[in-house]
Amino acid sequence: MSDQFARLSLNTMTAKGWTLREAVEAAAAAGLPAIGPWRDRVAEAGVDTAAKILRDNGLRVSSLCRGGFLTGVGDESAALDDNHRAIDEAAALGAPELVIVAGGIPDRDLPGARARLADRLARLVPYAADRDVRLALEPLHPMFCADRAVVSTLAQALDLAAPHPARTVGVVVDTFHVWWDPYLAEGIAAAGAAGRISAFQICDWLVPMTPDPLVSRGMMGDGVIDFGSITALVRDAGYTGDIEVEIFNEKVWATNGYTILEVMKQRYRDLVLPALAG
Amino acid sequence: MSDQFARLSLNTMTAKGWTLREAVEAAAAAGLPAIGPWRDRVAEAGVDTAAKILRDNGLRVSSLCRGGFLTGVGDESAALDDNHRAIDEAAALGAPELVIVAGGIPDRDLPGARARLADRLARLVPYAADRDVRLALEPLHPMFCADRAVVSTLAQALDLAAPHPARTVGVVVDTFHVWWDPYLAEGIAAAGAAGRISAFQICDWLVPMTPDPLVSRGMMGDGVIDFGSITALVRDAGYTGDIEVEIFNEKVWATNGYTILEVMKQRYRDLVLPALAG
Repeated sequence: MSDQFARLSLNTMTAKGWTLREAVEAAAAAGLPAIGPWRDRVAEAGVDTAAKILRDNGLRVSSLCRGGFLTGVGDESAALDDNHRAIDEAAALGAPELVIVAGGIPDRDLPGARARLADRLARLVPYAADRDVRLALEPLHPMFCADRAVVSTLAQALDLAAPHPARTVGVVVDTFHVWWDPYLAEGIAAAGAAGRISAFQICDWLVPMTPDPLVSRGMMGDGVIDFGSITALVRDAGYTGDIEVEIFNEKVWATNGYTILEVMKQRYRDLVLPALAG
Repeated sequence: MSDQFARLSLNTMTAKGWTLREAVEAAAAAGLPAIGPWRDRVAEAGVDTAAKILRDNGLRVSSLCRGGFLTGVGDESAALDDNHRAIDEAAALGAPELVIVAGGIPDRDLPGARARLADRLARLVPYAADRDVRLALEPLHPMFCADRAVVSTLAQALDLAAPHPARTVGVVVDTFHVWWDPYLAEGIAAAGAAGRISAFQICDWLVPMTPDPLVSRGMMGDGVIDFGSITALVRDAGYTGDIEVEIFNEKVWATNGYTILEVMKQRYRDLVLPALAG
């Protein structure tokens, strides 16, 4: 493994066509030390087999995607049960961080949805803490507030995390979701100072956006995000963990997985690595 | 004119098919006291004729849309000249507020674009102040940060306004752009306390979004925004000005203008007015 990729992780969504085994073996062969699996790929393999695949290939898990969707009205037991299972899976895989996507608004009451999220997060924390899994709150771009995540900024995620110890609740810095934030530097610095940066995920913001904003995430360098400056903020905040490439993009998904890996390594080397060293 | 519509204004973009004269005459006939023209409609009529049309129909201008686009690299004289013309037009129409849409990023340097905006705003303020026109900074939804406006939140707009007297630089509260903000209540309260709420524009957030996010703005009630609670925040912040309906939506644009006016009056009465009285 080349040292320059010692922190680079492949999120399984980036090479969506691969099974977990294919993704892990290809990442390992490409010299990557880590992978960020989604639960669907783990479920296909079975969690015990997934853990064995990771061990056999010497890869660590940067984070498990994802739990959450905790904003529903009414009976919350199904949502909590699913999150308990996600925490168990993270523990079985040795994943230190479980990414939490909050969930959207089932009605027009946004403050209500945010309050339910806070309550249910508090109910999950002890279960996760007992299993050494940190709940990593991911602010999603505000365009997803209605249908996917009522957590929209790092400042808000840190406010939600604040009642809980830093070892139990962290926040995700995903360039696609936070690059526009006028207070991004303050948010990343505060997350670092609180010891709460759980994950650093990278991909680009395409202009124009694709018709479905969910798949408008581009390979680093194909959009308008300045990876150097955001990486420097994360570096200066003291984060030393993995850097996960997570891209939802139909064109990327139509590309051969090995090509995706080579392009992402090259872009990482050109756009991210200089700021890590700097 | 019925008192219940004493603050309701038709933005010309909502009835896009109409000339300025058609929009003004229809708004007046519908009992509205105000209109929010875009500059294209004013230019078609000619500014002197536009002013006469407004006087003849007894309508005031809630705001003029729009100046701005001040983030370009290099020679800024054309952008400043255009903004001077927009200020002149606002003054000629008796428009107290000129909406400013910041402009996007010409390269990957977002902090640089924001700094250029601040510099150029400072250069425009004396010219606008001399003509009794307030520059109304409009935070646009963060999904427009790259290509349209690097001002993304009320807090950021207030920071940009802060160096200038409140009578010279204000901020726009547009429900579509700000509804998701976790710190919306604080932002509206701060804008009110600073005497800087220039305009209150309303339209809804549709789920799912349309493929072109620019025209994903819906008639109040057709989406997920809670107009009662946001109107109450604006009311409690001391804003007593006009409430402008500004919708970009292909289906609305395909509707007869008189129907649009009747629907917007009904939705305003049902969704906004109770909170104004409350």
